[in-house]
Amino acid sequence: MTDDSDATDPGAGGHSEADPEILAARVADGDLRLYELDDHADAETAATARRIVVERDTGVDLSATGDYTFAAESAESNIENLIGGAQLPVGVAGPVTVRGEAADGDFYLPIATTEGALVASVNRGCAAISDAGGATVRVTKRGMTRAPVFRVADVSEGAEVAEWVQDNEDRLAEAAEETTSHGRLQSVTPYVVGDAVYLRFSYDTGDANGMNMATIATRAAAEVVEEATPASLVALSGNLCVDKKPAAINAVEGRGHTVTADVTIPRETVEDRFGTTPEAIEEANTRKNLIGSAKAGSLGFNAQAANVVAGVFIATGQDEAHVVEGSNCITTAEARDEGLYASVNLASLQVGTVGGGTDLATQSELLDVIGFAGGGDPVGSNADALAEVIAAGALAGELSLVSALASRHLASAHEEHGR
Amino acid sequence: MTDDSDATDPGAGGHSEADPEILAARVADGDLRLYELDDHADAETAATARRIVVERDTGVDLSATGDYTFAAESAESNIENLIGGAQLPVGVAGPVTVRGEAADGDFYLPIATTEGALVASVNRGCAAISDAGGATVRVTKRGMTRAPVFRVADVSEGAEVAEWVQDNEDRLAEAAEETTSHGRLQSVTPYVVGDAVYLRFSYDTGDANGMNMATIATRAAAEVVEEATPASLVALSGNLCVDKKPAAINAVEGRGHTVTADVTIPRETVEDRFGTTPEAIEEANTRKNLIGSAKAGSLGFNAQAANVVAGVFIATGQDEAHVVEGSNCITTAEARDEGLYASVNLASLQVGTVGGGTDLATQSELLDVIGFAGGGDPVGSNADALAEVIAAGALAGELSLVSALASRHLASAHEEHGR
Amino acid sequence: MTDDSDATDPGAGGHSEADPEILAARVADGDLRLYELDDHADAETAATARRIVVERDTGVDLSATGDYTFAAESAESNIENLIGGAQLPVGVAGPVTVRGEAADGDFYLPIATTEGALVASVNRGCAAISDAGGATVRVTKRGMTRAPVFRVADVSEGAEVAEWVQDNEDRLAEAAEETTSHGRLQSVTPYVVGDAVYLRFSYDTGDANGMNMATIATRAAAEVVEEATPASLVALSGNLCVDKKPAAINAVEGRGHTVTADVTIPRETVEDRFGTTPEAIEEANTRKNLIGSAKAGSLGFNAQAANVVAGVFIATGQDEAHVVEGSNCITTAEARDEGLYASVNLASLQVGTVGGGTDLATQSELLDVIGFAGGGDPVGSNADALAEVIAAGALAGELSLVSALASRHLASAHEEHGR
Amino acid sequence: MTDDSDATDPGAGGHSEADPEILAARVADGDLRLYELDDHADAETAATARRIVVERDTGVDLSATGDYTFAAESAESNIENLIGGAQLPVGVAGPVTVRGEAADGDFYLPIATTEGALVASVNRGCAAISDAGGATVRVTKRGMTRAPVFRVADVSEGAEVAEWVQDNEDRLAEAAEETTSHGRLQSVTPYVVGDAVYLRFSYDTGDANGMNMATIATRAAAEVVEEATPASLVALSGNLCVDKKPAAINAVEGRGHTVTADVTIPRETVEDRFGTTPEAIEEANTRKNLIGSAKAGSLGFNAQAANVVAGVFIATGQDEAHVVEGSNCITTAEARDEGLYASVNLASLQVGTVGGGTDLATQSELLDVIGFAGGGDPVGSNADALAEVIAAGALAGELSLVSALASRHLASAHEEHGR
Repeated sequence: MTDDSDATDPGAGGHSEADPEILAARVADGDLRLYELDDHADAETAATARRIVVERDTGVDLSATGDYTFAAESAESNIENLIGGAQLPVGVAGPVTVRGEAADGDFYLPIATTEGALVASVNRGCAAISDAGGATVRVTKRGMTRAPVFRVADVSEGAEVAEWVQDNEDRLAEAAEETTSHGRLQSVTPYVVGDAVYLRFSYDTGDANGMNMATIATRAAAEVVEEATPASLVALSGNLCVDKKPAAINAVEGRGHTVTADVTIPRETVEDRFGTTPEAIEEANTRKNLIGSAKAGSLGFNAQAANVVAGVFIATGQDEAHVVEGSNCITTAEARDEGLYASVNLASLQVGTVGGGTDLATQSELLDVIGFAGGGDPVGSNADALAEVIAAGALAGELSLVSALASRHLASAHEEHGR
Repeated sequence: MTDDSDATDPGAGGHSEADPEILAARVADGDLRLYELDDHADAETAATARRIVVERDTGVDLSATGDYTFAAESAESNIENLIGGAQLPVGVAGPVTVRGEAADGDFYLPIATTEGALVASVNRGCAAISDAGGATVRVTKRGMTRAPVFRVADVSEGAEVAEWVQDNEDRLAEAAEETTSHGRLQSVTPYVVGDAVYLRFSYDTGDANGMNMATIATRAAAEVVEEATPASLVALSGNLCVDKKPAAINAVEGRGHTVTADVTIPRETVEDRFGTTPEAIEEANTRKNLIGSAKAGSLGFNAQAANVVAGVFIATGQDEAHVVEGSNCITTAEARDEGLYASVNLASLQVGTVGGGTDLATQSELLDVIGFAGGGDPVGSNADALAEVIAAGALAGELSLVSALASRHLASAHEEHGR
Repeated sequence: MTDDSDATDPGAGGHSEADPEILAARVADGDLRLYELDDHADAETAATARRIVVERDTGVDLSATGDYTFAAESAESNIENLIGGAQLPVGVAGPVTVRGEAADGDFYLPIATTEGALVASVNRGCAAISDAGGATVRVTKRGMTRAPVFRVADVSEGAEVAEWVQDNEDRLAEAAEETTSHGRLQSVTPYVVGDAVYLRFSYDTGDANGMNMATIATRAAAEVVEEATPASLVALSGNLCVDKKPAAINAVEGRGHTVTADVTIPRETVEDRFGTTPEAIEEANTRKNLIGSAKAGSLGFNAQAANVVAGVFIATGQDEAHVVEGSNCITTAEARDEGLYASVNLASLQVGTVGGGTDLATQSELLDVIGFAGGGDPVGSNADALAEVIAAGALAGELSLVSALASRHLASAHEEHGR
Repeated sequence: MTDDSDATDPGAGGHSEADPEILAARVADGDLRLYELDDHADAETAATARRIVVERDTGVDLSATGDYTFAAESAESNIENLIGGAQLPVGVAGPVTVRGEAADGDFYLPIATTEGALVASVNRGCAAISDAGGATVRVTKRGMTRAPVFRVADVSEGAEVAEWVQDNEDRLAEAAEETTSHGRLQSVTPYVVGDAVYLRFSYDTGDANGMNMATIATRAAAEVVEEATPASLVALSGNLCVDKKPAAINAVEGRGHTVTADVTIPRETVEDRFGTTPEAIEEANTRKNLIGSAKAGSLGFNAQAANVVAGVFIATGQDEAHVVEGSNCITTAEARDEGLYASVNLASLQVGTVGGGTDLATQSELLDVIGFAGGGDPVGSNADALAEVIAAGALAGELSLVSALASRHLASAHEEHGR
């Protein structure tokens, strides 16, 4: 499938359209546009033709990009103007012991990244967590949100619309849920700002990330609002959702899964695995993750949660831009007699085990490595489990990096200053 | 290279270590750890052995993951515990006309994503921009930052240290720059919070993203601070950097490249390409991107900048977790007599054309598609150019999504309500 | 009452304690502490004695401070260690026409301030609003919040506590409402962060600001939580309330009253009263209040809402430190054919018409000037009315300042550059 | 002066304008407007006339409001439409020992407030600080800012303007400093967002708060920008200043004075004065002020800094709306063997000892109580000293409230649960 020479059917003689060279030439002649190629050939051939066009336009050899594993057709719902595949190295961290409600056991964490030392760092944290008996993890909130913005005549009308919405959540739920088999409307929260009304719809979307489900369902509900009230829809997303922006509303109220993980690591394990003390880790965490972040005006109070979220997201077919909200994480660390207590709170982790990129060849394998591909039983339990495992991974990354910062300092202080 | 059967040397008889099956068995027996495999085999073989281990532990077939294009050794600085490759479909948007200082011409945007409709959306925006003569783009600030935190005795000592630092920036620059051939220390800004002093070092890092360069240089400078003052280093990163967290300091002061792009699209082009009006786009932008984001407590005032940033970052070997800061984008739109004026301001776009994942097989090809792989002449011009092209792509994505929201509404209003 | 010579009872002969000079001497001798004076004399005499002490310690003549109008005893619930009164000049703006649900009519705005031009500025805005038929105002949310933080064993226990709270809101309401005749618990929202659980209690507090009511009621509810669950109270306020800090949770979800006001000012009125155009005001508002604030990482998207809030708060006995949350205001402006549409959204305006400083001599008069002193009928309507009038005042301040910025520029441009 | 009967000159027969009754009647007849009264009478008489108008319009007796101490004329630069005085009770906390650079000694803190228990709370903290030898305090940054926004043709022109500004700071300084005898331009920082350029001017304003000085100086500098570049001024304040809004730019970079205070309180003192332990205080501070604030999306990481700032600001004639930025405070607490280390960092405390309301009768007395009224020697040292004393007071308030929260819990736990 990844062999360009197979992309055209040599026996298909007269079907000149299926010849990528000919297709590429038609594009070069201005006879076709790149995105029209899918109408004239199968996905694979169209991709080959595009590669030829781009190669000729830019003089770049795209043979590695053309040498991809997944079936081009399988990606049709994921991409347009396909030219091939980007390949990121995947490393595996763990296994890490997770004591969640949906995920209970030992789990490998596949991490796709190009940042050296990241997998090793997470791996070190996983080992410490597992040594300590595992991370306790809980999902405390779920809800994919979408918040259309409506125009109203004035604040008086805005207040009436807001009140109508609160009184008619049932009608909105009915309309919204007609568009989906799994989604359930959990709540609608109105915000009036001048002559604009924002309605933040929150859905339980089962095992799916749910962005599309939420958008479609909200469109239906918005129509009901428009019919029943004087409000007029301006945009189906009014940025109170908030999708892929670093926003306090998500950090405070959550979006997707809100998940918290913690562990108490015995003092000896801290010293053996991390080469430092619970006290030094607490100090580094307080000064860096709490006070430093406070001074920076940050919504993220952590060391590298985004690294773990990004690495697992790419490996398992999640939406990579949701790394933005994935960094809304608060890390705590406290030295105790028995050792180090540490936790992470990921306010807005947006994951799914069905849909999105989860069906692509490598992504479905790597999701399977964690063990919760596809729909869960009960519905939603697989997405919960994935969230729990990622939270444990984020905790591992935090422990490892903060302790490295703490110990590296000690080390360098010892070496260089003789203290 | 991706054929497992070649991974061991059949003629190497006695080198049983190089047999992935045997290595995998040793891991299963607890004789070796996953990460120790690199000491007993070449990168490819070690990866194969790990896949075997993981496959057996989890019962998952990793053949797609094992079928990767890049050379395993080539990824050694990018990953540990390699098990294979994650493959994301790549589509191409554009070409888009860019009128930057470093990038001037027409550029394809390779986008690696699993979110359907994204490439098509950006592509539509690129066409409109190019029709309008191209996006004007400028990099207005550069600087990779690293901010260690030090402990001092009290605020009096903290104030002295801060003053010493301001008076001795030359000494710090000298120490920092000894560690790097390209990096240049631009400034050090001290922040005193109780008995903690944070020093935000900002570097010109040429064509590299510069995170590692900044870290190493700052370590050297921090040693000078420790020697010359009573301050004691607690952590080499004190979260005033801020790396991979959504923080106001980056949105305000920038990190990496601060880059702004704009375009004026003629009224007819808006109507033809987007099926709506400049006025409707301005309204949607104001209510969604400005007021909606304001009400959400957001640091991102845009529609989907993170989507474009993430897609190009993954395709071209950038650090995927830097998507977090990449979403610190303000989008403006203004209806004028002649058409629509629109702009994006990306405060903290962290890009490089050397180092990181830019040398991997597919990434280097895709970076070449844009056209600025490797070191620039003058130094830094390639990274500038990449930032400019991404900014133009982000502008395309904004135009396309905001106009879609505006027109979709109009459309649905027309269809369904007869208005 | 403000005459020191009357402060002691000449006929009380032997009661030497009531002689402020003697009391002051005892303080100077270390025999009494300043705060113990209230145990040895009436409030007036104690204040006089303290003034003598401070005057002697500092060499400052406090005669103006000692010449206050209110009865010292009347301030006993408002102050400790009373030494006198601080007197701020009060100006009056308006009347402004308000079309609210609780306040409908023309209202003077008493403003206590030392910032020259403020009253004039608000006054100018009031005139324009009244000319245009008045500001439409609505309170869209009410709720005084208090959020204690509890310690739990781990995230598992934290999740259980959160669930228990959600299932037992009735029990918590019962306990909370036993402590108050007017307060009503509206909701409790749990947030789990590691081994901490924050419970944000929101109360309808009628016509009172309600901070104390909320604190006392929450203390009772927290005891129920401690009795029924393993959670242990760490602090009765865990800063998710959030009181007197600039926090997104208040800007997004509101605290106290969430109130929105708007007006459409005819084009001629804009030109006559403000010497500029709706278009110039819209531009200044977009570039300053929306985009400028966005770039500043601000939670306030307005020109001077805090000025109006502070001035009316001090005049009417509100808690002056609640000006912090009072600045969480979004101002919008849109040029239309008919003129200028403008609005303010004050997310967290914390007002009361009973309790706090509302009973003090000048404050009760000035609250009466607005017209809603004391408890409302129905309960809460007076506080609503005060919020509505302040919102209209804030709108006046915004209109005036933004148009001044816009026109001053035009003016200076005209004068100096001949354009 | 505060006696209305003296306000008109009975012997001035024919000067009917000076009769407040007659003036009030003319206002009632629509012959005069409230603000025109100053043209027809002295300040006192005009105020009396306005009171009569308002009394008749509202039916409210304003005799307390009319009974003020300051000279009406003395408030002419502070207020318009004067009707009288608002009187707040003032209590005194302290003395507190301050070890600052500008303030070194024991200082009373006059606090004007209507919030019961505040003065007592601060007083308790002052005593503990003094017992411990005093608070160490340092001002680490000074700078009053003003940030006009300009319109440019596009980002290319914006980048040129930004560069011109950076190259011509001297010219801007010259123009700015011509308007002021004390102000000195410290820096100009440009921010380009689309076709808008924001220039953040920062001034050393000596002992004055400096808002007006900065505005006037910036106006002059903005004219130079307009003359020398194609940029066109849109608004003299573009909200990157940021004045009286809760914004990260101030919390991070400071505005006015950035001041930090700390103290180490012996373990016994903590127990005696606060009835709790350093450990309990550290825990309450971490869970409330650091983690709770983090979860709330707050820019303030403290317990009640705004209370102290507001109380002293009102007492001493500072701008009361600057309480907004005054709440940008980070409080830290750490239990150590020897006791409790605690600190406050006030990023943006805007104070002055000249100008503003500092010359009013009660305010000048109360500023004198602290001891730094008027211009300092060297210039700026009085404002520094005031900032230092307020910071020590804020620290006192933090210690007191956090320890109260911690101990109250212990107490209630002891009483009620027998633990």
